Amino acid sequence: MSNEPIMPVTDRPLLMVMSAPSGAGKTTLCQKWLAQSERLVYSVSCTTRKPRPGETDGKSYHFLAESDFVERVARGDFLEYARVHGNYYGTLKETVLEALRKGLDIVMAIDVQGAAAIRQQALSPDADPLIRNGYADIFVVPPSFAVLRERLTGRGTDAPDVIATRLKNAMGEVERWREYRYVVVNDDLAAAVGRLCAIRQAEHCRRSV
Amino acid sequence: MSNEPIMPVTDRPLLMVMSAPSGAGKTTLCQKWLAQSERLVYSVSCTTRKPRPGETDGKSYHFLAESDFVERVARGDFLEYARVHGNYYGTLKETVLEALRKGLDIVMAIDVQGAAAIRQQALSPDADPLIRNGYADIFVVPPSFAVLRERLTGRGTDAPDVIATRLKNAMGEVERWREYRYVVVNDDLAAAVGRLCAIRQAEHCRRSV
Repeated sequence: MSNEPIMPVTDRPLLMVMSAPSGAGKTTLCQKWLAQSERLVYSVSCTTRKPRPGETDGKSYHFLAESDFVERVARGDFLEYARVHGNYYGTLKETVLEALRKGLDIVMAIDVQGAAAIRQQALSPDADPLIRNGYADIFVVPPSFAVLRERLTGRGTDAPDVIATRLKNAMGEVERWREYRYVVVNDDLAAAVGRLCAIRQAEHCRRSV
Repeated sequence: MSNEPIMPVTDRPLLMVMSAPSGAGKTTLCQKWLAQSERLVYSVSCTTRKPRPGETDGKSYHFLAESDFVERVARGDFLEYARVHGNYYGTLKETVLEALRKGLDIVMAIDVQGAAAIRQQALSPDADPLIRNGYADIFVVPPSFAVLRERLTGRGTDAPDVIATRLKNAMGEVERWREYRYVVVNDDLAAAVGRLCAIRQAEHCRRSV
């Protein structure tokens, strides 16, 4: 007869991967979510692009030299990486593992391609058990295509054809929702944050697969 | 371009099956959970045993004549049934479907054998899609075997050997947790109810399998 918990097995640190089509309101939602708990941290990714004014190394991004980035790619240090407009972007396995080892939940906000790469690695039998057991992904969607168009137009900073392209891309991205474990409709910011918090709490109770 | 929601697919009425070893505090927990939402109803089961004082037909149980019960078993009306101490107990498929058709979530509190029978039916390809898509199961555990013993002893109504048997059975039942999607530790009543509410909310966002 022991005083130890019988069932500590479902509770584990989580790697929560979040994607959304452009205009779904992912950034704000993610910030509000992170503000809910000190045990939930944001996964800072690496890039080879130059820091913009106001960006801090290690907070906005880890800013790496291209040679350093490429070397780490070769070493297999990245959970995922991509080259966009001549710059590299990627997430180090170590960033995620460091948080999980501390018992913290970590959130990655990443596009559908990056999420697909991470999902494949995270759920492979060779994955670090901390990552495999903690993995969960969430797709954020606006409540309707009409709202999506409104949000993409509402920025007011882009030409109509740019908006049209972005809308078309977003509609294509929406189709990828079937790859995710959860779908959160961002109809109301507070309600959507509530759903994210509930998903996180439920995942802590869920038997890992 | 439509005003219809893009992603109504994850949201669906849920059949939540809850089991617990004796002494885990399932009954109180379940009552508190049900009190949280009018959209969450309790699955009233059928029995052939006589009503006890204070029990109402259709609320505590649907009280059936044995001939009626046996006929319905033969018709395949039951999602699960069992004979205990000479009486039949069972859950009608129709009870569950009626709630789901109304868009209500329904909770069944049932032992591990009954839950196993329901799980097999619910997740079979032949199952009614409402049941298959809405199915989720939860195992409730006390925080430790020491607490379990305390709770089983604390009732003060049974002989030591009865308690010992019940404790042994409960410890055997605990082993069945691996069959369930979720495990909720009932360390603190309010916290445990919060976990159940989170699981329900997360399941509404989860892509059905």
